[in-house]
Amino acid sequence: MSNIRVAIVGCGYWGQNLLRNFAELDQAEVTVVCDFEPRALTRAKKRYPSIEICQNYADVLTNERVDAVVLATPVSSHYPYARQALQAGKHVLVEKPLAQSSRQVMDLIRTAEAAGKVLMVDHTFLYTGAVRQMKSLVESGEIGQLLYFDSVRISLGLVQSDINVLWDLGPHDLSIMDYLCEREAVAISATGVKHLNTPYENIAYVTVQFEDNFIAHFHLNWMAPVKVRRTLVGGSKKMIVYDDMENSEKVKVYDKGIVQNHDPEKRERLLTGYRNGDMLAPRLDTTEALRLMAQDFVTSILQKRAPLSDGYSGYRVVRLLEAAQRSIEQNGRLIELRESPISLEELLPVSRLAVGD
Amino acid sequence: MSNIRVAIVGCGYWGQNLLRNFAELDQAEVTVVCDFEPRALTRAKKRYPSIEICQNYADVLTNERVDAVVLATPVSSHYPYARQALQAGKHVLVEKPLAQSSRQVMDLIRTAEAAGKVLMVDHTFLYTGAVRQMKSLVESGEIGQLLYFDSVRISLGLVQSDINVLWDLGPHDLSIMDYLCEREAVAISATGVKHLNTPYENIAYVTVQFEDNFIAHFHLNWMAPVKVRRTLVGGSKKMIVYDDMENSEKVKVYDKGIVQNHDPEKRERLLTGYRNGDMLAPRLDTTEALRLMAQDFVTSILQKRAPLSDGYSGYRVVRLLEAAQRSIEQNGRLIELRESPISLEELLPVSRLAVGD
Amino acid sequence: MSNIRVAIVGCGYWGQNLLRNFAELDQAEVTVVCDFEPRALTRAKKRYPSIEICQNYADVLTNERVDAVVLATPVSSHYPYARQALQAGKHVLVEKPLAQSSRQVMDLIRTAEAAGKVLMVDHTFLYTGAVRQMKSLVESGEIGQLLYFDSVRISLGLVQSDINVLWDLGPHDLSIMDYLCEREAVAISATGVKHLNTPYENIAYVTVQFEDNFIAHFHLNWMAPVKVRRTLVGGSKKMIVYDDMENSEKVKVYDKGIVQNHDPEKRERLLTGYRNGDMLAPRLDTTEALRLMAQDFVTSILQKRAPLSDGYSGYRVVRLLEAAQRSIEQNGRLIELRESPISLEELLPVSRLAVGD
Amino acid sequence: MSNIRVAIVGCGYWGQNLLRNFAELDQAEVTVVCDFEPRALTRAKKRYPSIEICQNYADVLTNERVDAVVLATPVSSHYPYARQALQAGKHVLVEKPLAQSSRQVMDLIRTAEAAGKVLMVDHTFLYTGAVRQMKSLVESGEIGQLLYFDSVRISLGLVQSDINVLWDLGPHDLSIMDYLCEREAVAISATGVKHLNTPYENIAYVTVQFEDNFIAHFHLNWMAPVKVRRTLVGGSKKMIVYDDMENSEKVKVYDKGIVQNHDPEKRERLLTGYRNGDMLAPRLDTTEALRLMAQDFVTSILQKRAPLSDGYSGYRVVRLLEAAQRSIEQNGRLIELRESPISLEELLPVSRLAVGD
Repeated sequence: MSNIRVAIVGCGYWGQNLLRNFAELDQAEVTVVCDFEPRALTRAKKRYPSIEICQNYADVLTNERVDAVVLATPVSSHYPYARQALQAGKHVLVEKPLAQSSRQVMDLIRTAEAAGKVLMVDHTFLYTGAVRQMKSLVESGEIGQLLYFDSVRISLGLVQSDINVLWDLGPHDLSIMDYLCEREAVAISATGVKHLNTPYENIAYVTVQFEDNFIAHFHLNWMAPVKVRRTLVGGSKKMIVYDDMENSEKVKVYDKGIVQNHDPEKRERLLTGYRNGDMLAPRLDTTEALRLMAQDFVTSILQKRAPLSDGYSGYRVVRLLEAAQRSIEQNGRLIELRESPISLEELLPVSRLAVGD
Repeated sequence: MSNIRVAIVGCGYWGQNLLRNFAELDQAEVTVVCDFEPRALTRAKKRYPSIEICQNYADVLTNERVDAVVLATPVSSHYPYARQALQAGKHVLVEKPLAQSSRQVMDLIRTAEAAGKVLMVDHTFLYTGAVRQMKSLVESGEIGQLLYFDSVRISLGLVQSDINVLWDLGPHDLSIMDYLCEREAVAISATGVKHLNTPYENIAYVTVQFEDNFIAHFHLNWMAPVKVRRTLVGGSKKMIVYDDMENSEKVKVYDKGIVQNHDPEKRERLLTGYRNGDMLAPRLDTTEALRLMAQDFVTSILQKRAPLSDGYSGYRVVRLLEAAQRSIEQNGRLIELRESPISLEELLPVSRLAVGD
Repeated sequence: MSNIRVAIVGCGYWGQNLLRNFAELDQAEVTVVCDFEPRALTRAKKRYPSIEICQNYADVLTNERVDAVVLATPVSSHYPYARQALQAGKHVLVEKPLAQSSRQVMDLIRTAEAAGKVLMVDHTFLYTGAVRQMKSLVESGEIGQLLYFDSVRISLGLVQSDINVLWDLGPHDLSIMDYLCEREAVAISATGVKHLNTPYENIAYVTVQFEDNFIAHFHLNWMAPVKVRRTLVGGSKKMIVYDDMENSEKVKVYDKGIVQNHDPEKRERLLTGYRNGDMLAPRLDTTEALRLMAQDFVTSILQKRAPLSDGYSGYRVVRLLEAAQRSIEQNGRLIELRESPISLEELLPVSRLAVGD
Repeated sequence: MSNIRVAIVGCGYWGQNLLRNFAELDQAEVTVVCDFEPRALTRAKKRYPSIEICQNYADVLTNERVDAVVLATPVSSHYPYARQALQAGKHVLVEKPLAQSSRQVMDLIRTAEAAGKVLMVDHTFLYTGAVRQMKSLVESGEIGQLLYFDSVRISLGLVQSDINVLWDLGPHDLSIMDYLCEREAVAISATGVKHLNTPYENIAYVTVQFEDNFIAHFHLNWMAPVKVRRTLVGGSKKMIVYDDMENSEKVKVYDKGIVQNHDPEKRERLLTGYRNGDMLAPRLDTTEALRLMAQDFVTSILQKRAPLSDGYSGYRVVRLLEAAQRSIEQNGRLIELRESPISLEELLPVSRLAVGD
């Protein structure tokens, strides 16, 4: 089968990374780069002289040498651009977040299914060796019952001009949590603040509640002096610390836990103690996650199957984001997720593998 | 003037630390140790043979060789024991939290004032070199306008048998925040979960809102596989990271911040950028904090002045704790602090220096 | 059997630690504390009022209430004091290094054997959970063939007034290496420098060569701005990093190594590659090492057996120290260890278990 | 002036980095890439289609579209290739080490001077923000008198097939030391071992002695389970820790030191104490060092001046390497540097700025 011909739309910081990765895939070929900025096009052309460049997105849509469109454009353009591309018969990969509302995402899912095209969101972290290792630890039962998920993603800048910290950083951790924990949230509350006259929240704290006493919490901050990217996953048998700032040993599995003291006689202060065992840092695959993500997009097209971070993954994340946003705007009020316009149950009949032409 | 004669009541883990520190003070003398457990008394007697031991708190109250009582007993006993001691004419130092409700604390404050005795709560962290250094950085204006306070205090165990993680670990960070930030909270929300059939919350997230867009957040967890004690203080000019697990350089001051881009022409993605300067880790006084706290109690008695962590400090902390607890019980509902039984304004006429003979 | 009655001689920084540990042992009792400094005696008496104090070492030697002498005095006194104590019929534990020359140590060993008394040196680190764990990893064969031992022990101060950094810090790492690696050194070279008009070397680098291509290297420094205590043990199968400054996970075992590429066709740059597997941080016993060392001394006396860090352990360490010192004085010349006054072979007939009365 | 036309010779791992950096310079243009491996040429051509490729180095030498040759070839080819290029009238930049002996380097220097061409060695680290910051700290006198330089560069692999760890990793740290400390070594001793049947040393320890009690030490290791790249620079006023594995704050300046106690009365154990002040981590320029190095080469050609890491820098480093190698082969014998074939004094008359045509 011939190579998938890809157009990169938006060639800023992340677009250049996507360009490089797609350019180096065996089964793909970047035929077009599109950007408003002439400078971005010149830069791309210098690196990849055989690539066609254009400033007008409409030209991408009508270009017959384009099978798939990769959108690394501002978030507000994700929905209209993706919709147009699907309707023009292109497969679509969209930078996170997939769109600005769960309604938009659902519409994209329906449009992709009607068109028989692949719709994918770039939840890059799902493709890291670290997250894949954690997934296998959770799935194998080694961690035991999941108790909590706690994530901190903070650093200085980059303050975005079109979205707040929740919509910018949140998709990373929400998608990881969604992937690892595979359970439906029942309610969400969030607090956000805007400092220094920025129009958007630069700090957000998000708490997600689930039915089974499992809890997830997210600290997102663009104004922290240090870069922290750390996730704790607490289980009844073992606990994981995932520290993405470590050069190696990013995932540490602690054989630690709480043990109950059932001796009724004991008049001691501690009714419960803790178990303190070994720590294991498993070897991780170090393949670039973006490469694997790009490959999954191409393979999904070729094999007519859904990618790992498909439209539904995008939907579940955007649904949490919009509920968290609503909570922020209502000063931290608990938002029941059944208040969302479309419930997840409603989605279930839609087969995740229904991609075809 | 003769030495202050101290009774240590409750000689478990923390009581032993208090015993050692008071025993080594120049202007104090530990005359009595009281504990229900004969073993605790034997251990204390072996170390300090000249000390009088007793199992009955009533004996401490009537003992004429006791000027001041130091309570390191279960939280539920703080209020009755402290009240009895004050009424018996003893000065009182109480382990944190000062009591179980703000009403109780207020009653202790009134009782102490009526008796002309010192009432103090052991907010040990206020006496660390790290917190004192941070206080001076905030007070000098070097940090600029305070933007946020974010604190994480997590580790494995020790699960307490009489209080939850909020009341056990929360007083440390709430007292530091109260001391550094000196502003009145307007609302608080908190989420807590109980895992593994423990009767008390073992994880709590607390968000405190203030009038001026300043925000404080606390992550408290008894079930984390790693020990983290890190506080971020964000200012408009500089930012502080206080990492209590560092062997040295516990306080780092970052000359970092967000800068606005006022160029209206600029069509760039970033309307705001960040400033990235030096980092300074100031030398810290390494005197044991508990020693300084004990000394402050003794000096306050001798000089008839209020200690740093006086009853009002205890009141402000307990007021936040009880509002956070209420929020946890109402599933994260935002609690306005004016809902509290006694407002802080009401307290103001009471002179903080009204300690007398 | 009745308790072993111990005299602590020298009650400065380390002597106080020894005092506390012996005082809390079940089978021992500290009956006497001896120090030139009245202040040290007052301090000890305040803590342990029942203890007899004296300023004159001769009084310890003749005291019938003393079964064993613990020497925490300046290094130059170790030999004469230990010799006198053994001759007076006391068991002897000596602070490291055991003496100032291997001849002195050998004489102490002979004296102890003649007197049927225990002679022990305080190589505290051998009793840490970390070193004991490493020992078991090496002994079990899990590490494979030992390739190298590399140790760094640096910090700021404390500059000693009677010995250089080699004799002060060196015994720690040399005793650990001796214990773990159990092989005879054939040659040693060392470089040392004296800065800022100090009479003694404040930096030393020591390289020890062995017959089987195993190499050991030691970096000792009193003038480093940061505290580093890190040892690498390289094996053909696994490698260990022992970082004593870590709060937990002090010992990390890396399933890493070099693999040979035997493909003769391969014209690649790399003839050898590396194997990169998991890392395991085993749970360590956290019992205070000094307690276990003190206990070993007492048990050795009671059971008439040799302690772990017996005179021969002290001998092997002092023999390396004196050869390294000679090398420093000869500007790094390689010193063959058979140049030493007494060879290790000469010692072999002497049974290590010949302690008895 | 027209762009400098560059040929990249050897396009393996490092050659590709050089290619990318020269391709992106404003005043340079990569016209030719030469490599034995067709695969390397295909890869380069795919990225930069306008580049001429060739397998034969002779074709580079005769190519009139080449002003300057950049050699990233095996070390044994450095000398003949560089010599030929200079004689063919090309400027030359050589990967470190500049050649295999100081005689070879001296011949290259003379050849370059005769030809009026730039000869440069790629001591990349001199161009890092970290080393430039350290240089300014040393030069300004802020550090005081230099006392020691201690460097550790260890990790797992990559074992090289043509040189040992000394010649592979040593140039980095020796060039940094040479640049920062600017003093002439008088003697050197080194120990190295070969493990696992590798033909070359995989561990080396190097000690360099200087006239003024300043000492430098280097630990180089290809078989360490962890990656450490840490340099300590001790001064009489301040001390620097340069940790290249840190994500930020790579350079930390400690206001710490030893202070003499001049009180003759004092009978205390400590005659010297230490001073413990603030730590400052200055902001560092994060421009890619390789970019600055490439730019320095091009600017040197255009401005007819010597680059920072010129032939003499290469000479001083190779001179230390060959003396260290000799010491390794003589089992750690101290090698006096005046034993070297050409003394540094002999070089002094040669102007470092005599580049020109």
